[in-house]
Amino acid sequence: MGKIIVEVMLKPEILDPQGQAVGNALPRLGFTFAQSVRQGKRFEIEVAGEPTQAMLADVEKAAEEFLANTVIETFVVKVEK
Amino acid sequence: MGKIIVEVMLKPEILDPQGQAVGNALPRLGFTFAQSVRQGKRFEIEVAGEPTQAMLADVEKAAEEFLANTVIETFVVKVEK
Repeated sequence: MGKIIVEVMLKPEILDPQGQAVGNALPRLGFTFAQSVRQGKRFEIEVAGEPTQAMLADVEKAAEEFLANTVIETFVVKVEK
Repeated sequence: MGKIIVEVMLKPEILDPQGQAVGNALPRLGFTFAQSVRQGKRFEIEVAGEPTQAMLADVEKAAEEFLANTVIETFVVKVEK
C-alpha cells in the first residue's frame, strides 16, 4: 500500500485569517518562535501498491480540479516514503 | 527565514468524514486511484533564521498543547528544506 500526499496552501498573496489567528494566539500562550503562520490542508491518499507515474499524474489532475481551488490555492503532490 | 511545518492528522482509529467525502467523490469524478483518503491540517510556521533544536522543541510543545488535539489527532514536526 503506497501513500500519495497532496498539500494545499493558500497563495502567499491571499489573506489567511485562520493562520493569522494561530500566529496571534501563540505569543499569548508563551510561544515566541513564529514570525508568521499559514494554515492549509493535507490529504493522505492510500493507493494500491507503489505509486506509479500515471497515478501521480491522475492525483495532480484531481488536485487541480477538485482538491485545491487554484484561483486562491497552490498544491504540491508528493509520494510518502 | 526558516520554515517549520506541523502536520496534524486524525488518528487512524478516528472516523474522518471529510476524508471519506473526498474519497467518495473522487470515483464519481472519474478518479479511481484512491483506496482511502484522510484529510488533515498543515501549518507553515516562519521563523527567524535557521530553525534551531530549541525552536523545534518549542514547536513540538505548541503542537502538543494547541495545534493538535492529541486525544484524537497525531502530529509531526518537520523542517522544510
